[in-house]
Amino acid sequence: MIVDALIEKIAETQNPTCVGLDTSLSYLPADMRAEGKDGRAAAEAVYEFNRNIVDAVCDIVPAVKVQIAYYEELGPAGLEVFRKTCSYAKGKGLFVIADAKRNDIGATAFRYSASFLGENAPFESDFLTVNGYLGTDGILPFVEESVKRDRGLFVLVKTSNPSSGELQDLRLADGRTVYECMGDMAEQWGKGTEGKYGYSRVGAVVGATHPEQAKILRGRLPHTFFLIPGYGAQGANAEMLKNCFRAGGMGGIVNNSRGILCAYQKRGGTYAEAAREACIDMRRDLLSVLGEICAK
Amino acid sequence: MIVDALIEKIAETQNPTCVGLDTSLSYLPADMRAEGKDGRAAAEAVYEFNRNIVDAVCDIVPAVKVQIAYYEELGPAGLEVFRKTCSYAKGKGLFVIADAKRNDIGATAFRYSASFLGENAPFESDFLTVNGYLGTDGILPFVEESVKRDRGLFVLVKTSNPSSGELQDLRLADGRTVYECMGDMAEQWGKGTEGKYGYSRVGAVVGATHPEQAKILRGRLPHTFFLIPGYGAQGANAEMLKNCFRAGGMGGIVNNSRGILCAYQKRGGTYAEAAREACIDMRRDLLSVLGEICAK
Repeated sequence: MIVDALIEKIAETQNPTCVGLDTSLSYLPADMRAEGKDGRAAAEAVYEFNRNIVDAVCDIVPAVKVQIAYYEELGPAGLEVFRKTCSYAKGKGLFVIADAKRNDIGATAFRYSASFLGENAPFESDFLTVNGYLGTDGILPFVEESVKRDRGLFVLVKTSNPSSGELQDLRLADGRTVYECMGDMAEQWGKGTEGKYGYSRVGAVVGATHPEQAKILRGRLPHTFFLIPGYGAQGANAEMLKNCFRAGGMGGIVNNSRGILCAYQKRGGTYAEAAREACIDMRRDLLSVLGEICAK
Repeated sequence: MIVDALIEKIAETQNPTCVGLDTSLSYLPADMRAEGKDGRAAAEAVYEFNRNIVDAVCDIVPAVKVQIAYYEELGPAGLEVFRKTCSYAKGKGLFVIADAKRNDIGATAFRYSASFLGENAPFESDFLTVNGYLGTDGILPFVEESVKRDRGLFVLVKTSNPSSGELQDLRLADGRTVYECMGDMAEQWGKGTEGKYGYSRVGAVVGATHPEQAKILRGRLPHTFFLIPGYGAQGANAEMLKNCFRAGGMGGIVNNSRGILCAYQKRGGTYAEAAREACIDMRRDLLSVLGEICAK
């Protein structure tokens, strides 16, 4: 069961870090940017960069998160590189999270589910991020495909951005906040799909930048694994994201994109070496607050 | 200003209908489905179908809505056909709504905005659907690009699917429902971008399948133009969607996908002829409740 396998890989690497391949062309060293070349050459430069990052980190991190917006911007050639990046990372033993935040009514959600999680998915991934604003019938096609093909989801619950509270922190008449309500729905959507460590196939996106809300959600959603953005460039430090985890250091995986991809700009060295060092430093930082991580 | 131009085109055609190019391979006549061929051949069959539909309806409807999920499912070749379909429809004088329901934090939303609305957008569209769960900083990049390039948005407010009420109809402590709150945010995001008919660049998706909520929203959001799904296959009839419009028949555009693309299965004739007849029947049906449509 894929969430169990992810948990075991996190314990094995002692590193609940997910490398965010939000690979903007502007992150590449100047000599790689393929300036003046066509869109396909630019996309291929991104792919080369991604491959080298994956090679540099694949033995010390459990997962990558590939943010599809950066590939859509490069058109069909960019989406081919998204596909190849997911496939390459998978081949190197990494779990692949497609960060696409897809959402639609049932019949259309089924198409997105086929695109990322289906048997012949062109953008095959292990996990997909989804937005639950449309309610159950917009999410069930993803859950059903996840069950059928041993895949998983992360539902946006409390996002890391500054404005996330405008809707998500509002209080409902029943006393819950909107993010608590969305968290309860995620917990409900995952019900019956729990693996041996108690986490279901339906995880939640919970930003490290909002530690008070993370604490409430961690207590409220016992079967929900967290994908945790916000560390590093977005402003959250290790202390702030402790609330996303249980005792024993389990319960989530922390994404870092720019802090790893662009580490070479601060550290010097090649981008691949710098990315590896950044992952090692991040592990040290996370473990300093989480302690030894146990698969449980 | 693009919303003014859309309104004038609706008045000119006397047809507030948007043809939904949610072109599933399964909608194509059997001899077009390119069975056993590769993904690219399947995608090209979809493009041929779309071209013929566009040719058949472009003088009697103002717009198409292209649902990207159906193209993502066919991989990069499908996305190339999405791009070509948008471009072809635009060339035939139709307004193009990219139905992608994109959403993310600001820096990433900017990438999606560049993908669909930007100067060199690979998936160039006139309007884009977006999901506002993340709040203002996730929407502003789209609004800014819309202002810069004379484009528009439709924010998901009250969706047409059966489960939409699970979150959207919940009552907040301040007395509003969640969909009213999202509608208020859409109205706010569009503020200052209104055209001569009073509608802003930030529209709202309001399902015809929920007439009570549509009535409330139509009264509450004076500057917000509606994209109205749910007519036909999803169960809404003309009487139900009257609430989405103002007196004078203006204020929104009604999408129909399967009812037009698959009309040939019920009516006989070629799919293009049947699609045209379905658009004419739909116009008659809509005008029977809306009366003559005035640009105002």
